[in-house]
Amino acid sequence: MSATERFFRSRWVDRPDHVTELDPGGLPQGFRAAGVACGIKANGALDLGLLVSGVQPTASAARFTRSGTLAAPVLLTMQRSQLDGLRAVVVNSGNANAATGRPGLDNAAKMQGAGAMVAGVPERQVAVASTGVIGVPLPMHEVMRGIAAAARSLAPDGATDFAAAIRTTDAFAKRACLEVTLSGGPVTLCAQAKGAGMISPGFATLLCFVQSDVELSPETCDLLLGVTVKRSFERVSVDGQLSTSDTVLLQCNGASGLRVEPETDDELRFGEALDALMRQLALSVIRDGEGARRIGRVVVRGGDGAAVHRVARAVADSPLVKTALYGGDPNWGRIVQAVGMAMPGSAPLAVDVAIEGVLVCRAGGFVPHDAQALTTAVQRDEVEYDVGLPGEGAETERFFSDLGHEYVTINADYTT
Amino acid sequence: MSATERFFRSRWVDRPDHVTELDPGGLPQGFRAAGVACGIKANGALDLGLLVSGVQPTASAARFTRSGTLAAPVLLTMQRSQLDGLRAVVVNSGNANAATGRPGLDNAAKMQGAGAMVAGVPERQVAVASTGVIGVPLPMHEVMRGIAAAARSLAPDGATDFAAAIRTTDAFAKRACLEVTLSGGPVTLCAQAKGAGMISPGFATLLCFVQSDVELSPETCDLLLGVTVKRSFERVSVDGQLSTSDTVLLQCNGASGLRVEPETDDELRFGEALDALMRQLALSVIRDGEGARRIGRVVVRGGDGAAVHRVARAVADSPLVKTALYGGDPNWGRIVQAVGMAMPGSAPLAVDVAIEGVLVCRAGGFVPHDAQALTTAVQRDEVEYDVGLPGEGAETERFFSDLGHEYVTINADYTT
Repeated sequence: MSATERFFRSRWVDRPDHVTELDPGGLPQGFRAAGVACGIKANGALDLGLLVSGVQPTASAARFTRSGTLAAPVLLTMQRSQLDGLRAVVVNSGNANAATGRPGLDNAAKMQGAGAMVAGVPERQVAVASTGVIGVPLPMHEVMRGIAAAARSLAPDGATDFAAAIRTTDAFAKRACLEVTLSGGPVTLCAQAKGAGMISPGFATLLCFVQSDVELSPETCDLLLGVTVKRSFERVSVDGQLSTSDTVLLQCNGASGLRVEPETDDELRFGEALDALMRQLALSVIRDGEGARRIGRVVVRGGDGAAVHRVARAVADSPLVKTALYGGDPNWGRIVQAVGMAMPGSAPLAVDVAIEGVLVCRAGGFVPHDAQALTTAVQRDEVEYDVGLPGEGAETERFFSDLGHEYVTINADYTT
Repeated sequence: MSATERFFRSRWVDRPDHVTELDPGGLPQGFRAAGVACGIKANGALDLGLLVSGVQPTASAARFTRSGTLAAPVLLTMQRSQLDGLRAVVVNSGNANAATGRPGLDNAAKMQGAGAMVAGVPERQVAVASTGVIGVPLPMHEVMRGIAAAARSLAPDGATDFAAAIRTTDAFAKRACLEVTLSGGPVTLCAQAKGAGMISPGFATLLCFVQSDVELSPETCDLLLGVTVKRSFERVSVDGQLSTSDTVLLQCNGASGLRVEPETDDELRFGEALDALMRQLALSVIRDGEGARRIGRVVVRGGDGAAVHRVARAVADSPLVKTALYGGDPNWGRIVQAVGMAMPGSAPLAVDVAIEGVLVCRAGGFVPHDAQALTTAVQRDEVEYDVGLPGEGAETERFFSDLGHEYVTINADYTT
């Protein structure tokens, strides 16, 4: 691990003491991966990834976007794959295979079939994913050639190429490899993700593949993935857009020989590691992009659980808050405005707002404060906003990227 | 009327045959207005407006933002003014008097009191409004001086200054003066508006003041304003942000001697004129801004009334759709993505999408089309998107601005 490429770099994510960072190009025991260029991307960049667990059975769990216009690979994987026993993953970038109708589903099925063939597993143990432009037929000749080439390149150190092959315009690869010390010894936990949206186009598509050589039951896989997705990717606002293609998979193949039983200290330790991994990945996703200067965190406290979530989302999704964050502008009135938008009919609302610990608004009215100190504080890489609503007991947080010129530049002519 | 400054300029608004455009600097009989510079804006621009009807009674109606963090003038006007009998309006720009707590309410009350004094009407017949930065105390010395100066400047041709005084960073004044021919003769219908949001900062604050010398009952005023606001300002998406300060007022003083009775042809004729006026004003609001290149209209048809509204809003608010519109990019996949986001759990959704009449997606799958012709079509000033959902019977529309560099530039450091 190089000190200059430390994975855990946000003040909002603590690396657990029993977790250390390994070379991010590695994979847990029993996994192999590859990434190749098959010609979907016109510029010749890597665009097809394959990842295979050599252990039968491998326990797995999955989460997908809830979009009404699901991309074909998402529909196919949800309907035809054995989500608690996935051995292999086939992914392409450069084309989302979305809004492609019946031919798109056929193409996703062909990807699954080819993946099963080269991995030597049943089709139902293969997940497929695609990310890129919507509404263009997938070039199947290239995809099939890519799957064959990727199969020949599968390697225990193939995570770097795999992570590159799932990127669209991500400015940097989002991947990590961690050693997690359990009571019986160390296991390995790795992940490769691609992010998007505010900081790159592609409809905010999130793909995240997580692997470990720990042995978990499929039920525990599902439980841990569900909890950690809720605390990570479901708490980030990129541009408030729901993708046709979001896919998160966790595969645990048991190759370490170390089994984690439900409701044990080891389950807690593994869960803490997974939680930290997912949260840092989610923050890396929103930080990505040529133009993303800084990211924000809003913490909302109050007496109404539904209200704190609505308010957190309204603040994190507000383009006015995001542009102020981009500009390093302590324009706290925009926080008040977003809160009011999320709480229609509640005026006059006794809202408190603090930025980087400086109270600027109490019970709906401004509080004299050191404006110069506040201006300096909001120029940092990470800016924290606290919102207090009447009552107490409920609390949530949400992370968000800024909105800058590069978002406009990237998104104004993505297809042309 | 100058041909180069024609008010009705959108293909989406038809000027009714019984409506002609007058010099927009005028006002209906019995109204006087003024706009002065009182020093709220540091650059010396006009920042205080006063508008008075000389007729007692004047019938009126009002609509306000539903924000939970209402600005003080909105709270005060809603709670203390006689909304169906407003004679005078006092407005300042440069400061929203929002998030200003109890002192803010006191200042709004002082504005109302001063307005009543100079207009010679009871306080309850005065509405107040403020627009500008949030969370800064209103400079009351300047405001009071401004109200006195405006009173001295009140004139029948004062609409130009009044319209200028309510602007923040609007690139052009939004006002109109129309002659509406009723069965008994002509009446005059004028309006002054300021827009915002995507195309200028200030939290998307919309202020719109409409006057006529027709005689209407307060009930008819309220009915017509309610219907026309729903079809105009409630159908535009600037940046999806709800303001602390939005205020729309209609005042009808009867000075023409022509009375419109409920459920008559004349009510329909006046309503049509008001509808066209409000729709064109709403389109002018979203077109404003140094960077707004073009505006879009999405029409959604299907079998579910709630769904068509959700989908129209999702498309119109999508920053991905907006940046593509800015870039003149026919990226119709972003329409499909926004539709899917608005219809979670409905996959596979048989959505149809057409852009400028070119069908690009049928039943969720792409349709071969002339991409070059489509690219040319989306470079026009106004771009129309049609979305078809399963079923039939429900339909709605929504208008939206694009998202360009100027939005970022203007909003990144509004207060600093």
